[in-house]
Amino acid sequence: MDLKRSEIVAARKRTADILDRAGIALTPYERETIEIADFGLGDLQRQGLEIVTCINTDRYCAKELVLFPGQTCPEHLHPPVDGGLGKMETFRCRSGLVYLYVEGENSGIIQAEVPPGSEDYYTVFREIELRPGQQYTIPPGTKHWFQAGERGAVVSEFSSTSRDEYDLFTDPNVRRIPIVDEAI
Amino acid sequence: MDLKRSEIVAARKRTADILDRAGIALTPYERETIEIADFGLGDLQRQGLEIVTCINTDRYCAKELVLFPGQTCPEHLHPPVDGGLGKMETFRCRSGLVYLYVEGENSGIIQAEVPPGSEDYYTVFREIELRPGQQYTIPPGTKHWFQAGERGAVVSEFSSTSRDEYDLFTDPNVRRIPIVDEAI
Repeated sequence: MDLKRSEIVAARKRTADILDRAGIALTPYERETIEIADFGLGDLQRQGLEIVTCINTDRYCAKELVLFPGQTCPEHLHPPVDGGLGKMETFRCRSGLVYLYVEGENSGIIQAEVPPGSEDYYTVFREIELRPGQQYTIPPGTKHWFQAGERGAVVSEFSSTSRDEYDLFTDPNVRRIPIVDEAI
Repeated sequence: MDLKRSEIVAARKRTADILDRAGIALTPYERETIEIADFGLGDLQRQGLEIVTCINTDRYCAKELVLFPGQTCPEHLHPPVDGGLGKMETFRCRSGLVYLYVEGENSGIIQAEVPPGSEDYYTVFREIELRPGQQYTIPPGTKHWFQAGERGAVVSEFSSTSRDEYDLFTDPNVRRIPIVDEAI
């Protein structure tokens, strides 16, 4: 089930409003081209991510990531590409609250809720709570997923070069690059 | 003439206030360690830069740059280091107004005012005006300088690895790494 054009337009509007409230300015072009990623799972509000790619060169990348309230970016990792290290990334929370999960020890209790029906595809539970001004750097090749608190979140991502098409998701149903059905 | 401790404390407070107003959150540690760079010129309000380095790894770097009203970051370039390309950087204006000057054609008129007495050390005048949400990427090895408008500015800098100690300034009086006289 692909994203409908109308869903994308509505999600872009909502994302731009969230960024406005966080004090993060976009150009008109950026507002109209916000990437709405539902990962092919057809449940954007629950599993999805809204992305403004500020810059992506062969040396570095910067994005603004927006999560709607309770929205989850599914578990994935960034593998080595072309013999180089995988993507390394720093998440810096700008507004709201983010629960980030990476590989490692966990207490057995997490604050986020794994998206119902997708429990098999969430396997790492070391919790990092990020509030505005706080950040965490995810080493290359590390499985991770993240979920916004009940008021949503804005995260600046600073990283090495981004090559999203190589990302490896735990959920085999994920399609990273969404297909838009223009006819709907 | 080195920066006095009291000047640094006051400049950090002012910088944190500007970032607060721009909606950019810092951790308590970041607030207390904001880098106050007067470039050894002893005239911070006119030629200087306030810096929060969010992250600087061997793959990428991100900083928040603050300019007081009318403050200028002196002309410099980022040379090749250890056989690699020089630093490449993207300036994204978050609040206020920035006049950025790089090598290239210019109209003969610029909107910024070259700091009086330092005219010999400002040699590139291709003007790029950056308002919130607008950005510009400076190629490695390109001379550049920038000045805030009359209300100051906040700029996010996304870049390759930062090695400030290698920066080459046009003004031979510049010392990039300030010395603080703890006794004053």
